[in-house]
Amino acid sequence: MSLLEQLIEAFRVLPGVGRKTAQRMAYHVLERGRDGGRDLSRVLAEAVERIGHCSQCRDFSETEVCAVCASGGRDRQVLCVVESPADRLAIETATGYRGLYYVLQGRLSPLDGIGPRELGLEALATRLAAGEVGEMIVATSATVEGETTAHYLAQLARQHGVRPSRLAQGLPLGGELEYVDRGTLSHAFGSRAEMPR
Amino acid sequence: MSLLEQLIEAFRVLPGVGRKTAQRMAYHVLERGRDGGRDLSRVLAEAVERIGHCSQCRDFSETEVCAVCASGGRDRQVLCVVESPADRLAIETATGYRGLYYVLQGRLSPLDGIGPRELGLEALATRLAAGEVGEMIVATSATVEGETTAHYLAQLARQHGVRPSRLAQGLPLGGELEYVDRGTLSHAFGSRAEMPR
Ligand SMILES: [Zn+2]
Ligand SMILES: [Zn+2]
Repeated sequence: MSLLEQLIEAFRVLPGVGRKTAQRMAYHVLERGRDGGRDLSRVLAEAVERIGHCSQCRDFSETEVCAVCASGGRDRQVLCVVESPADRLAIETATGYRGLYYVLQGRLSPLDGIGPRELGLEALATRLAAGEVGEMIVATSATVEGETTAHYLAQLARQHGVRPSRLAQGLPLGGELEYVDRGTLSHAFGSRAEMPR
Repeated sequence: MSLLEQLIEAFRVLPGVGRKTAQRMAYHVLERGRDGGRDLSRVLAEAVERIGHCSQCRDFSETEVCAVCASGGRDRQVLCVVESPADRLAIETATGYRGLYYVLQGRLSPLDGIGPRELGLEALATRLAAGEVGEMIVATSATVEGETTAHYLAQLARQHGVRPSRLAQGLPLGGELEYVDRGTLSHAFGSRAEMPR
């Protein structure tokens, strides 16, 4: 396989990139973006090796504890649980939230073999048991699996005397939190309510 | 800037990739595609350094002369002139063409400073003058600049006693050749006609 063919195939690791798009990317880089291509290659290699997960919140981090968890300026009594790093970033960008996060890196999906262990819920339980957290904001998506996960998390919170809350209705039904517009997300975040039993 | 931020920015060198898509790409590679990310980094670095242009047809090539130009199995009396490597690939894939190619790497656009020199038309003229080529298929796009380029190329061909032909009408007006479906392209290629004076 020629180097050009290899490059086209390699681009297909990216999400939503089929054969035709991969080909356009390869040609574009070779025609007009060789410097950018060099940068991408270097940063990508470094990122894949060096970016791991924060030991406290499971978000992506280059350091053992991420900048948010290590910050002295965050409210440690509020913990916002999200499905993914993208969701964490969306909330951090759209709202004025100043508490901490916990990133599940997924949501409960027994059929796919994703249970409490895969989402790090034992570590989360240990953290809730430590007593520092007063409110847990459950910011999982408004999908069926997101709701299932939310109910599981609410029970876990109550077991440890922590008050669970959920983002206000207003998220589009079935919507992935990551793609919600800023205004809707900010409003829903602000009007979160304690979860009914 | 964190390594993750650097990675997101680096992905934006790719065509059509804005901030949001770049972010999805970075997260996807870190979550599910680290091996693929390593491959992409390695192949990209190698491709950017090693892929140059064929000295005969100006298409991308790792070697001084590309595989098509070096092949003993092609008809050297027919030369197909295309705007880009993507167009060359589209013709090679969709049609049964077995002649040679010449890749302009652009089209005449005086306002953008792209003239005959930038498209390598001096080297093309030298080649036509050598007498081996009998027919030159002008496969530039059906855009205004593509038509201008086609007429310029037809004159050049006739000056050297070479018969210019143009892909049959049937290409959608204003359409980029690269995005035409296989059937249309193959039909238009097959019913090419000599260009009127
Ligand atoms: Zn953290
Ligand atoms: Zn060649």
